[in-house]
Amino acid sequence: MKELKTPKGTKDYLPEEMKKRRAVIEKFRRIFERYGYEEVCTPVFEYLELLEKKANLGEENVKDIYKFQDKGGRWLGLRFDMTTPIARIVASNPNLKKPIKWYYVANMWRYENPQRGRLREFWQAGIENLGLKDEVIDAEILAVTYDALREIGIDDFTLNINSRRLMDKICDYYKIKNRDEFYRLVDKKSKLKRVEWIERLKRFFKEESYFKNFLELMESSANEVWDKIPSLAKEELEYLEKIIDYAKEFGIGERYINPDLSIVRGLEYYTDFVFETYKKGEESLGSLASGGRYDNLIELYGGKKTPATGMAIGIDRVMEIVSKDISVQSSIDVLVCPVDDSFKKEAVRIASILRRNGIRCDVEIRRRLKNKLSYADSLGIKYCIIIGREESQRGVYSLRDMEKKEQYPANLNEIIKKVVRAS
Amino acid sequence: MKELKTPKGTKDYLPEEMKKRRAVIEKFRRIFERYGYEEVCTPVFEYLELLEKKANLGEENVKDIYKFQDKGGRWLGLRFDMTTPIARIVASNPNLKKPIKWYYVANMWRYENPQRGRLREFWQAGIENLGLKDEVIDAEILAVTYDALREIGIDDFTLNINSRRLMDKICDYYKIKNRDEFYRLVDKKSKLKRVEWIERLKRFFKEESYFKNFLELMESSANEVWDKIPSLAKEELEYLEKIIDYAKEFGIGERYINPDLSIVRGLEYYTDFVFETYKKGEESLGSLASGGRYDNLIELYGGKKTPATGMAIGIDRVMEIVSKDISVQSSIDVLVCPVDDSFKKEAVRIASILRRNGIRCDVEIRRRLKNKLSYADSLGIKYCIIIGREESQRGVYSLRDMEKKEQYPANLNEIIKKVVRAS
Repeated sequence: MKELKTPKGTKDYLPEEMKKRRAVIEKFRRIFERYGYEEVCTPVFEYLELLEKKANLGEENVKDIYKFQDKGGRWLGLRFDMTTPIARIVASNPNLKKPIKWYYVANMWRYENPQRGRLREFWQAGIENLGLKDEVIDAEILAVTYDALREIGIDDFTLNINSRRLMDKICDYYKIKNRDEFYRLVDKKSKLKRVEWIERLKRFFKEESYFKNFLELMESSANEVWDKIPSLAKEELEYLEKIIDYAKEFGIGERYINPDLSIVRGLEYYTDFVFETYKKGEESLGSLASGGRYDNLIELYGGKKTPATGMAIGIDRVMEIVSKDISVQSSIDVLVCPVDDSFKKEAVRIASILRRNGIRCDVEIRRRLKNKLSYADSLGIKYCIIIGREESQRGVYSLRDMEKKEQYPANLNEIIKKVVRAS
Repeated sequence: MKELKTPKGTKDYLPEEMKKRRAVIEKFRRIFERYGYEEVCTPVFEYLELLEKKANLGEENVKDIYKFQDKGGRWLGLRFDMTTPIARIVASNPNLKKPIKWYYVANMWRYENPQRGRLREFWQAGIENLGLKDEVIDAEILAVTYDALREIGIDDFTLNINSRRLMDKICDYYKIKNRDEFYRLVDKKSKLKRVEWIERLKRFFKEESYFKNFLELMESSANEVWDKIPSLAKEELEYLEKIIDYAKEFGIGERYINPDLSIVRGLEYYTDFVFETYKKGEESLGSLASGGRYDNLIELYGGKKTPATGMAIGIDRVMEIVSKDISVQSSIDVLVCPVDDSFKKEAVRIASILRRNGIRCDVEIRRRLKNKLSYADSLGIKYCIIIGREESQRGVYSLRDMEKKEQYPANLNEIIKKVVRAS
């Protein structure tokens, strides 16, 4: 039956996977909070007009929005990012204290061709920092990304940075028209074959010499590219250089920062600094974390002009990388095993006492005693408590250490001490 | 502009509210995990056929489902509960180890008239226990509910319990037809005026004496109602009595359990034990946590017959009760304040060191020094570190205790020790 599957591009997260995700998400939260970001949550759907306003401007295409009419005939759409709802809140609440430093862990939806690390329902953990335009804020966005990825054990990555404004200046210099189309092609530099990319690039240039210069610029190595940028873009370059300067103070290793003129991201949406993050050897997975400065969005939504910058980490993508290295513990510490049904009540009573002492436990009532123990073993549970007539009468139970395969008598206090110490 | 609002029946959760919700949710998680439940997560939408199958059977009305067609023309619907997706997973994975003990914290959607504690997008924290029919499992569901509500400081509530099967037997005895309609009316006992309720109830009875007996039964006090139940329902009554018996072993106070024949909940969906939870004086808020046994649902979805029971707590409803009593701490421990822009870099460097020591902090660069301190005060931040020329040169900074309004020199190690101890 079709309806027993999840809809295309969506999936269930069962306990083992969920424990790994939670471990990763909790680390992200801790990093975000260390930088003073606070969590927000918004509805999964918005008025479609709001979503389309931004989608029209950015990499997110209007056609990728899940949309529908509600019973009152209003057009709604599932959010495709969290920047839009957050910008809505800021636009409609001009008196929020600045800086606004918010984070989220949220699911969002886009019609895309499902592939590894790219689902139609996907999860992001991200931050937004609104209220000030300053290089130090953009550097902070990089620092949070850097700390968050390293915290979950991803180390071999680069933060590829660029500036939308810098690119605009370069395009001015080389007299390039059809900027939107041009940037879409620039963005494809690493996705197309070189020959094809060059062929298509050529068409945007009237003068052969401009084309050659531009190509040379785009193909320069990271440590020399900025020296070749035309002098009219010096101011924009300085902004990027200051970001890198601050990034060092934030403790970001120099080798992690990689100037890359092919990073253009959204078309109109980003105004300045932009970045993407790639793990070496996993470039095909796409950017693990991306973001940049969007100083015009709040105004576009009818709010006061509010400088803003932010980033989001693709949770499904980072899970593709780290999942295999996260070990999952048993969800309970103790399995309480009555030898037969006549000791169920006593087992329940004992389990309740253990729980009140903060111990995670369960009572096994489905299986025979022997099977209870092998069931506990299969789940990696550390201790079993066996409750039978003798145990019940004396208040001294059999505690079985499943790892050491040892069993010894212990009263409740001894059991609690033992288990609390081990867990 | 309309699109700057959240769609009807939905809301944003800003940081202060979100911190309170997170505190409550973390407590729920802890309780669920103590009982051995493990977290799962499913897509927000399902194939509409799946949702309608259950909705047709239950209190959830098909008309309340948010539905839409995807680009491939498939009908999808936003989930209205989590029991449906979980039942789908279990139906399509017959080899999952039993018992299946899963929990979730999730949002869901129903077209409803928004009112206090009742939104169109609402959040539930709940558990499902699949694989065994046994009184002790139903009692465990009550115990988890009980522990979870008490853990967040709600104490003055009753668990109102009943049995669908018991009600069926009673209806057999009094020869009542149109059961669906009848149960819908029974469910309204506390919502309608007594006169109106009785008037409408009467119509279901052919014999006056049956009506009188039934009315007397329904209006009996909790501690005598079961004695008046016709003898043909003794078996069903015993099941409920055993649940109560186990509930005691789980540590549930006797006064919390309240037999209530007006609790019928879903029509066809629940098969046996059902319950709702009301806080005294807050009955109008509706049930805080509800659930029951649904032994036929997995089979209905094409799976193997699998006994199942569960419950869900309405997060928005419990927040209405506990929110005011939760104190919210500042999100950062330390505000690092450079006296002017020339010390920004040093401030960033120091903040980075504090963060690497697990301290939550931020650098203030918008305001003048005096305003920085009053800003820190307004956010309830405990410490400020002031960085100026002298401080920078000597490596000894001014640490200001905002509560005590004291300021003294301290080097970085001293600051870290001090702040870590306080936070």
